[in-house]
Amino acid sequence: MLVVMSQSAGQENIDNVIQTIKQAGLVPHCIPGSIRTAIGVTGNTGAIDTERFSTLPDVIQIIRVTAPYKLVSRETKPDNTLVKVGNTVFGDKQIQIIAGPCSVESREQMKKLSGRLQKAGVKILRGGVFKPRTSPYDFQGLGEKGLEILAEVRESTGMHFVTEVVDTEKLPLVARYADMLQIGARNMHHYSLLRAVGKTGKSILLKRGISATLEEFLMAAEYIMLEGNYNIVLCERGVRTFAQHTRFTLDISIIPTIKKLSHLPIIVDPSHPAGIRNKVIPLSLGAIGAGADGLIVEVHPDPEKALSDGSQSLYPKQFEQLMKKLHIIAPALDRNM
Amino acid sequence: MLVVMSQSAGQENIDNVIQTIKQAGLVPHCIPGSIRTAIGVTGNTGAIDTERFSTLPDVIQIIRVTAPYKLVSRETKPDNTLVKVGNTVFGDKQIQIIAGPCSVESREQMKKLSGRLQKAGVKILRGGVFKPRTSPYDFQGLGEKGLEILAEVRESTGMHFVTEVVDTEKLPLVARYADMLQIGARNMHHYSLLRAVGKTGKSILLKRGISATLEEFLMAAEYIMLEGNYNIVLCERGVRTFAQHTRFTLDISIIPTIKKLSHLPIIVDPSHPAGIRNKVIPLSLGAIGAGADGLIVEVHPDPEKALSDGSQSLYPKQFEQLMKKLHIIAPALDRNM
Amino acid sequence: MLVVMSQSAGQENIDNVIQTIKQAGLVPHCIPGSIRTAIGVTGNTGAIDTERFSTLPDVIQIIRVTAPYKLVSRETKPDNTLVKVGNTVFGDKQIQIIAGPCSVESREQMKKLSGRLQKAGVKILRGGVFKPRTSPYDFQGLGEKGLEILAEVRESTGMHFVTEVVDTEKLPLVARYADMLQIGARNMHHYSLLRAVGKTGKSILLKRGISATLEEFLMAAEYIMLEGNYNIVLCERGVRTFAQHTRFTLDISIIPTIKKLSHLPIIVDPSHPAGIRNKVIPLSLGAIGAGADGLIVEVHPDPEKALSDGSQSLYPKQFEQLMKKLHIIAPALDRNM
Amino acid sequence: MLVVMSQSAGQENIDNVIQTIKQAGLVPHCIPGSIRTAIGVTGNTGAIDTERFSTLPDVIQIIRVTAPYKLVSRETKPDNTLVKVGNTVFGDKQIQIIAGPCSVESREQMKKLSGRLQKAGVKILRGGVFKPRTSPYDFQGLGEKGLEILAEVRESTGMHFVTEVVDTEKLPLVARYADMLQIGARNMHHYSLLRAVGKTGKSILLKRGISATLEEFLMAAEYIMLEGNYNIVLCERGVRTFAQHTRFTLDISIIPTIKKLSHLPIIVDPSHPAGIRNKVIPLSLGAIGAGADGLIVEVHPDPEKALSDGSQSLYPKQFEQLMKKLHIIAPALDRNM
Repeated sequence: MLVVMSQSAGQENIDNVIQTIKQAGLVPHCIPGSIRTAIGVTGNTGAIDTERFSTLPDVIQIIRVTAPYKLVSRETKPDNTLVKVGNTVFGDKQIQIIAGPCSVESREQMKKLSGRLQKAGVKILRGGVFKPRTSPYDFQGLGEKGLEILAEVRESTGMHFVTEVVDTEKLPLVARYADMLQIGARNMHHYSLLRAVGKTGKSILLKRGISATLEEFLMAAEYIMLEGNYNIVLCERGVRTFAQHTRFTLDISIIPTIKKLSHLPIIVDPSHPAGIRNKVIPLSLGAIGAGADGLIVEVHPDPEKALSDGSQSLYPKQFEQLMKKLHIIAPALDRNM
Repeated sequence: MLVVMSQSAGQENIDNVIQTIKQAGLVPHCIPGSIRTAIGVTGNTGAIDTERFSTLPDVIQIIRVTAPYKLVSRETKPDNTLVKVGNTVFGDKQIQIIAGPCSVESREQMKKLSGRLQKAGVKILRGGVFKPRTSPYDFQGLGEKGLEILAEVRESTGMHFVTEVVDTEKLPLVARYADMLQIGARNMHHYSLLRAVGKTGKSILLKRGISATLEEFLMAAEYIMLEGNYNIVLCERGVRTFAQHTRFTLDISIIPTIKKLSHLPIIVDPSHPAGIRNKVIPLSLGAIGAGADGLIVEVHPDPEKALSDGSQSLYPKQFEQLMKKLHIIAPALDRNM
Repeated sequence: MLVVMSQSAGQENIDNVIQTIKQAGLVPHCIPGSIRTAIGVTGNTGAIDTERFSTLPDVIQIIRVTAPYKLVSRETKPDNTLVKVGNTVFGDKQIQIIAGPCSVESREQMKKLSGRLQKAGVKILRGGVFKPRTSPYDFQGLGEKGLEILAEVRESTGMHFVTEVVDTEKLPLVARYADMLQIGARNMHHYSLLRAVGKTGKSILLKRGISATLEEFLMAAEYIMLEGNYNIVLCERGVRTFAQHTRFTLDISIIPTIKKLSHLPIIVDPSHPAGIRNKVIPLSLGAIGAGADGLIVEVHPDPEKALSDGSQSLYPKQFEQLMKKLHIIAPALDRNM
Repeated sequence: MLVVMSQSAGQENIDNVIQTIKQAGLVPHCIPGSIRTAIGVTGNTGAIDTERFSTLPDVIQIIRVTAPYKLVSRETKPDNTLVKVGNTVFGDKQIQIIAGPCSVESREQMKKLSGRLQKAGVKILRGGVFKPRTSPYDFQGLGEKGLEILAEVRESTGMHFVTEVVDTEKLPLVARYADMLQIGARNMHHYSLLRAVGKTGKSILLKRGISATLEEFLMAAEYIMLEGNYNIVLCERGVRTFAQHTRFTLDISIIPTIKKLSHLPIIVDPSHPAGIRNKVIPLSLGAIGAGADGLIVEVHPDPEKALSDGSQSLYPKQFEQLMKKLHIIAPALDRNM
């Protein structure tokens, strides 16, 4: 930590800061500059409460040097974490594709779709059964009925599935069925839910919040890890910016950033940022180009009749085209499918 | 709803849209323009599933005309809603000030502070007991112990209190003690919690999400109202933008916007956007100038020793100065304190 | 400046950084922390080229301690700068109101309006004659004809005027007529124009860029000051964020921030962020509440017929109401009108 | 255009809107909905001045249906525009790579670098000679001396070059030397400069403004085209958002959007959004994956000693690796190098 003093700070106030640092059991390092004095602070084992210092007279800025996350940091664990869902491994050379409808709507829908997706190479299905919707008047999901459908499909096809868990009450139910639990963007800051899914030990798909900073995103994973669960796949899904030509602005730059700072795998959801299906394939290829470990894509057998997010769902035929392109591109990026 | 066709749309695709509208039981109104054709849609009683139309051939845009919120709309209820907490009324001419520490830390802290705040004219205390913190390593609140302290202070002073409820598990406990339940910015999208606090019938302080649009903010209130609870006070607390000179960017323009579109009262939290105490008073006066019905302000008897948000907490003396200024300004704005 | 080393940095790379600092004629201060080492750098008289260090092996972050602006800084000049336009002084206790139409449209418009504004207490008119418009198909201003009209009004009423200068070619022409030169938001980064207006010695109204950071805003003023011209009034006019319920998001928090960091006066344009006239008065009162030194407001005698920005222009009657409110509020804020 | 009336609008105010539309020579189409009335407007040949209607009583919203851009629109010109610089063609199947230092610093630097870049397959050099810098204290470019160096390199190697033109004064000079003129992000709104470069007939590289919307970006191109110059290559270079983990947030979603709406080629600058060189390659591959027609990349023979943007400049060796990867990926995307 670095405490920066005002240009006009007198020796008394500088001494006061030094004294306060010492009283907190830390070690001050005074750096008198030509314009202002800064005081380095060392000797801390964990995070320092910066607020104790920021309000001292003539202190104009506190600069934190050590990042607040620990367990998620690549400095703590240099090797990639590999997260398994069935035989599928996230975080290795293979690009993993999760696909399925926004919402599970019926047994017929899922049977029809899952067969086609499996043929295209998909091993993990997605499908919402509890839907967090901005409007209370919109379709809210099939609930347990949807979980049963997904489980039936798993039994008959061998495909695993991920589905969103929206609150702690529904967690036991969802965890009984699902192979991987999704924390949606709106719940990335829902700390009791993060802790609770951490305790299940299940593989977690953690989506970035709609306006989450890099640090907040990693801290959400830290909450899960603190419960002993390292099976976390991060997911970039677009952030909210002034740009309204897509539903959200896909931030591919977070991919190499996460790769450098953390050992966790990161995949991309191209459907929600696109908002409209004709942008899903370009965003998918862009994400993979930037180094994503996989994708989670919305596909619907009949998007015009979808109960949610139809506009951004690919037709099965489009999805098959995407898969073909990925098979060609993967080796060019030194990866495989 | 308006369906906009591509400039190059042939008659066949235009007819197809018209047909689809009719099949949905709605009435199409074709408006052939000089450049492109648009088709107005009427006859709907609720929201139309726009996605059914957006994916038809040659449709380039769907424009929604009717806002999705109903109960919160001033068109539905032209008069201001008055929300009561004890004898305090939000939404009327009187400006209401809620004050207190970020977190309840001890009985001594609250006793010391509450007396002073009451003398300054405060009738409702704030104080967090379950704290949603970005870092799992930060202070997480006193829990039920904190609620007991707040209840004791209420008994001895007659001051009511608002405190945050972070999840549905803790709701029964918090609702047993608190006079007003706060939904924090991170939980504005937590729909099962919104429904649950709606069912309590208690007065609710609903904070705007960190990047919530106007419509999302009003829809969150709609979730609560749908449970029959109209006692909602909205709260602007700053949004996330590129500007980093404050912790969040206080968006005072939402105040007149809400006043026009909704009947609900809206107050402002100047402390979280400020991030640092010397900006709290200017933001407070700015918010009241823009028409806010009140403020919720962080005050701490000893901010340097605060366990959370010390930097942005006012000293009691500063808070008293703020109250004095508000007393002078209120009549100038045709309001009272 | 502080150079932060990677947690895994070996002594060799730390020594390399220290050596490079010394070679640059600067003084390194090594601060070994429990987790990582940071190296303070002092001895610089001006800005250090941080890039020379950020790319050295194992350097993970460079933290700048000294702000890059000098002349605009309150640390350099503790007293408020007072900027004069005629007898009007910006930066003192008096709140200054500039008013007028978005564009000068005709002699009749300006005569009709200026009389009314003068009666309401306005001493400085605004009126665009060269308009930077997003669309080349929109009205681009009257050019020199507009300047002549403004000069005639000045002669007959004694009111001074500010008008925008959009490029260096038109600067000599505009400077020959205008009392104060406005640099628009789109030109805040136009450095050759900033230098050129600096050389005129005229009073400058410098608007914040649409997404300018605090530092960029102050650095734009620094460009002007470097030419010896200290007569700068800053102007917040809303920034671009995700929030689309107003045209731009008015950022009142920059007012106390500028007041603390700089000696320059700052006023607010409430019209452009509002986008629609019914929000202009709330934003105006909010800005003054937050400590702005004045306002620049769009008023049109007949907004429905305005050639630009009609929707956000106040009716003269509304402007008179605003002035009345300001007269009441100013003393409550310890200011005058 | 669609005029949306308030829910409580009486017939009188609806008739007033209809009358006003007719008076403007346009055709009203009344669409009475179950909740509110909307009035479609047709019969316009160009853009309608929406402000004339937005301020009528009980009008709550004006919805524009036709986009304001014409010449840049793919609806106007369905085929891709091919832009030539020497023998290099932008907008066709070939991916074009522009490379070079941020600033031209010396003859030696450019000779050393250009040979190496040419060997790697680069046909167009970049190099700033007039630099728009946030700080007046930073290196501002070599000016004409830099142009001479670039021209010498062109003579000896046959490589063409693009360089930024920062204002109209320097345009004749820069245009005398350069093969392609760059309009930087800070100048995207500088309309007199856009017009002036339009008149030169030279190929233009138009960078997106730091917070420019899609529409503003296309309208800037429209300004250039209105002067008869269709040789425009658009360039996405990152936008300003809350996310600070990169210098700017690269918005790859604008690539497919532009491809759909406009006939102009679009390339990507991965260096400025990255801010730091280790993210340049992932962003480059992401951009090409998303469909960009090319890249403009900063490379420096000795980045540690660069006078500007050293941190984000690739080492020549890294650039060669990037080129190798692009050669492998291009065919996978059905493109070539």
